[in-house]
Amino acid sequence: MKIGMIGLGRMGGNMVARLKNGGHDVVGFDMSPDSGRDVDSLEALVAALEAPRAIWIMVPAGKPTDSTVDQLAQLLEPGDLVIDGGNTRYREDQRHAKELEQHGIHFMDVGTSGGVWGRTEGYALMAGGSAEDYEHIRPVLETLKPQGDSGLVHAGPVGAGHYVKMIHNGIEYGMMQALGEGYAMMEASELVDNPRDVCDSWREGSVVRSWLLDLLVRALDDDKDLEHIAGRAQETGEAKWMIEDGLNLGVPLPVTAASLFARQNSQLDDPMTMKVVAALRNQFGGHAVDKA
Amino acid sequence: MKIGMIGLGRMGGNMVARLKNGGHDVVGFDMSPDSGRDVDSLEALVAALEAPRAIWIMVPAGKPTDSTVDQLAQLLEPGDLVIDGGNTRYREDQRHAKELEQHGIHFMDVGTSGGVWGRTEGYALMAGGSAEDYEHIRPVLETLKPQGDSGLVHAGPVGAGHYVKMIHNGIEYGMMQALGEGYAMMEASELVDNPRDVCDSWREGSVVRSWLLDLLVRALDDDKDLEHIAGRAQETGEAKWMIEDGLNLGVPLPVTAASLFARQNSQLDDPMTMKVVAALRNQFGGHAVDKA
Amino acid sequence: MKIGMIGLGRMGGNMVARLKNGGHDVVGFDMSPDSGRDVDSLEALVAALEAPRAIWIMVPAGKPTDSTVDQLAQLLEPGDLVIDGGNTRYREDQRHAKELEQHGIHFMDVGTSGGVWGRTEGYALMAGGSAEDYEHIRPVLETLKPQGDSGLVHAGPVGAGHYVKMIHNGIEYGMMQALGEGYAMMEASELVDNPRDVCDSWREGSVVRSWLLDLLVRALDDDKDLEHIAGRAQETGEAKWMIEDGLNLGVPLPVTAASLFARQNSQLDDPMTMKVVAALRNQFGGHAVDKA
Amino acid sequence: MKIGMIGLGRMGGNMVARLKNGGHDVVGFDMSPDSGRDVDSLEALVAALEAPRAIWIMVPAGKPTDSTVDQLAQLLEPGDLVIDGGNTRYREDQRHAKELEQHGIHFMDVGTSGGVWGRTEGYALMAGGSAEDYEHIRPVLETLKPQGDSGLVHAGPVGAGHYVKMIHNGIEYGMMQALGEGYAMMEASELVDNPRDVCDSWREGSVVRSWLLDLLVRALDDDKDLEHIAGRAQETGEAKWMIEDGLNLGVPLPVTAASLFARQNSQLDDPMTMKVVAALRNQFGGHAVDKA
Repeated sequence: MKIGMIGLGRMGGNMVARLKNGGHDVVGFDMSPDSGRDVDSLEALVAALEAPRAIWIMVPAGKPTDSTVDQLAQLLEPGDLVIDGGNTRYREDQRHAKELEQHGIHFMDVGTSGGVWGRTEGYALMAGGSAEDYEHIRPVLETLKPQGDSGLVHAGPVGAGHYVKMIHNGIEYGMMQALGEGYAMMEASELVDNPRDVCDSWREGSVVRSWLLDLLVRALDDDKDLEHIAGRAQETGEAKWMIEDGLNLGVPLPVTAASLFARQNSQLDDPMTMKVVAALRNQFGGHAVDKA
Repeated sequence: MKIGMIGLGRMGGNMVARLKNGGHDVVGFDMSPDSGRDVDSLEALVAALEAPRAIWIMVPAGKPTDSTVDQLAQLLEPGDLVIDGGNTRYREDQRHAKELEQHGIHFMDVGTSGGVWGRTEGYALMAGGSAEDYEHIRPVLETLKPQGDSGLVHAGPVGAGHYVKMIHNGIEYGMMQALGEGYAMMEASELVDNPRDVCDSWREGSVVRSWLLDLLVRALDDDKDLEHIAGRAQETGEAKWMIEDGLNLGVPLPVTAASLFARQNSQLDDPMTMKVVAALRNQFGGHAVDKA
Repeated sequence: MKIGMIGLGRMGGNMVARLKNGGHDVVGFDMSPDSGRDVDSLEALVAALEAPRAIWIMVPAGKPTDSTVDQLAQLLEPGDLVIDGGNTRYREDQRHAKELEQHGIHFMDVGTSGGVWGRTEGYALMAGGSAEDYEHIRPVLETLKPQGDSGLVHAGPVGAGHYVKMIHNGIEYGMMQALGEGYAMMEASELVDNPRDVCDSWREGSVVRSWLLDLLVRALDDDKDLEHIAGRAQETGEAKWMIEDGLNLGVPLPVTAASLFARQNSQLDDPMTMKVVAALRNQFGGHAVDKA
Repeated sequence: MKIGMIGLGRMGGNMVARLKNGGHDVVGFDMSPDSGRDVDSLEALVAALEAPRAIWIMVPAGKPTDSTVDQLAQLLEPGDLVIDGGNTRYREDQRHAKELEQHGIHFMDVGTSGGVWGRTEGYALMAGGSAEDYEHIRPVLETLKPQGDSGLVHAGPVGAGHYVKMIHNGIEYGMMQALGEGYAMMEASELVDNPRDVCDSWREGSVVRSWLLDLLVRALDDDKDLEHIAGRAQETGEAKWMIEDGLNLGVPLPVTAASLFARQNSQLDDPMTMKVVAALRNQFGGHAVDKA
């Protein structure tokens, strides 16, 4: 089918390639003239598509997505469909859908997982929106997803796609931290000759076999003992949002929270919390403190 | 090769079946007359094998394993090999090895993962011991492991097998808790139509694809919404031991610990810690308490 | 000074008593006719005070406080002052202040700690607002606070009072949970003859001496071993809000979060997270599950 | 009464001063000639006391204490009493008691809290041992403790003193971390004018009033914003031991564990766990990593 794509960065660009490869007619737009864009403005993008249009947004969450939705609300016609494939928070989806609905424009959110591997292996897609809109863009989703039976779900109404993507990423945080803790324990022990080989052996038959484990072996093959990688990991919004929601739903999330805190902690050079602890130890016990 | 197997329960029995199927000559012993045992005493087991003997112990960790090792120390000859395939703590392995060494008997520990699936899919095996002993029982290990390239590792000297099995299980705890937290969040949200279908979709293309995810979908197909399963999970020793070791190695394990605490907590009907918190709230704020 | 008090429940009623005892002229209003109110409507309350009026709101956070502020915005005159002494979230304070400012009405938020003890011992007060407004109601604050040098702070602009009260309560959560964990460990050990006496002994000379420890001894004297108190503790909003803010500020709060999760967990009869963990153990290991 | 003191460091030296001030006859020994010792060998110490002797050991836990107990076992007479006032793990106490009992020598363990403040304010003392031995050294304990009604407990048999001291320190960890998290949140917010003043105000009327809060204000007065103190805090053994025991008793200790992990984490420059997390993010998402 014919579809517009806004945002031709790493994710959007790869998706365009996969879609074209699957026989779709994609018109791409990006702010950057060097992006290989097909048209040089949103207006031109809209003009290049026929109603009812389908336009997939693949730009950073927050301001860039907000602004794109605002502009499309003005440019599109009733019956057109906007799909947000980025990392928008699901509550924002609900706001965007309401805004577009006032112009008769449809909206879907599609959480997308698979990273740099998606172009060749396909993307796991989690869609939120009406059944009608889901069927409308299904040809596109079927091309983007992996080739097997899984990899695509219509999770629920608008917002559900990014909600379950948020949950997916929260689980991902916990799994990564679990692997990290286990690997660190092997590396710290004198008993284990080669932690990499242990991880490699777990790829069959073990309970922890998983894609993340495969990637860990791959990372260790790229950089033995990970000696060139600093022990600092960034966090994106999803785990944070999930914890916020869990707080309000009364679902305790100790592992997700511990995973997030570990990342936040890794970003702090001189945490104030530990200054206080060190200062208190010094006060009551005369224990020496390190100078800052 | 010819090998003795002590313990013909769920794990030991399945391993015997897989070994026999692979052409090995297995002599089985178990305390229970109804176990399908080949011999009815340890003495008879030893007599049925020729030196240098290889005997695989597959009985519960702790007293049963200790007692079996003690008896084998008396019954076996120098050059024989004892393999502990159970869930013994690695420090106990080191003690067992020392005890047997005084009689010239060799020892290996082989951590075994795969549960009820191992008989058909093969077991992930993590071996600790000397290179010589490892080569000696390699035919047996090759039969027990899955058919692919992975699933078997010689992790290091005596103790290393159970050490990395302990780590494996700690990672398993974290992964399971991460999946549990994520599933609970989908189930608690009104946005998600069918959490089971979301999990199923993640089996391809997603970052969290894993055997545990496959099993979660299977469990949900067996019992929709898990309504017949109580929210209580037991803990076995491994995560606990891993945390103890982490404490002493200075490797913080927040996710492993949170996963263990969640299980311990699920076993408590009326936790004293929370009685204290409730009592304090009542004292300072006059907040009502639930009656015990 | 003359002041109006809206809300004559446990907190508001006690504060009126302390204020009258301190020589202030308090006009009290409450929705309930049985509250001992001085006037029977907000209009009458406003009429009973002279401009520039000071009115202290002591009603539940959320809708009741919102509605009271809305009504006062209509009834009061420019130059009047509204003080929210309840448990409002600081962001709502900022919204309330903005709303009132449009009518020229001043606003302060005063976080209040001390619970049922405040009437006799005084309340710890944390004020947010302008220096001018703080000086204006200082006589009232000086009467409400304890008699020593501490117990009152002008924490910052509007919102700062409830912000630091939120932090206070978060710290309170951590301290209570720490005491609970310690007490539970003494109760679980056969070595400790009488945990209550240990706590009592810590009230002097120890590092953990604190008001909460005093209250714990008091609770244990009321109900030996806390046998009549269920191990379930409710959470109010503050720790939750603090964690939300911490997530966004990048300040890891593992202890505050663990304390909140422990309370949320104590409210769950059959946690879905642990159903998943139990189901997974059953799937891979054939481990029995408890029936729900 | 007459008593021997082994170890005249910061703790032992201050205790001798407090005891002498209280009218006791103390014979002090230390390995170091510059310690102000009264005698220059254990033999001389034993010779300077009359049977039944009471000797208080105040040396580092582990080897120094072990070695001292071993030597005293050879030097003392049946009926003499050894008191370990250090930070020995309670299981070691039980071993020491058994060793001494073979020579008819009595043993007590006395957990001691109060740090550098103990000399003037008194020490919180938690004793383990027989009722008879407790009464025997009670005059010494009464002098060392603070002057009020609290500060001393006979917690149970041998080991109980150090067990409850271990719990005390675990609670201390949680309280310190709770204060640290709260302070960090005030410091990170633009709303709070002066976090130090807020803490100072909490010293009366608030729920969190405590000695640790007093010390925090003192620390902030010594070093505004703690700018000269690094955010790194050491751990001593107690919280670690408490968590180990909690694991085995089935008492979940999320706050104690989180507090310990925070300290361990503060000691790590380049945590392997976070290298793994960063490496995995790079593998699946192409996210940049920091170079180590």
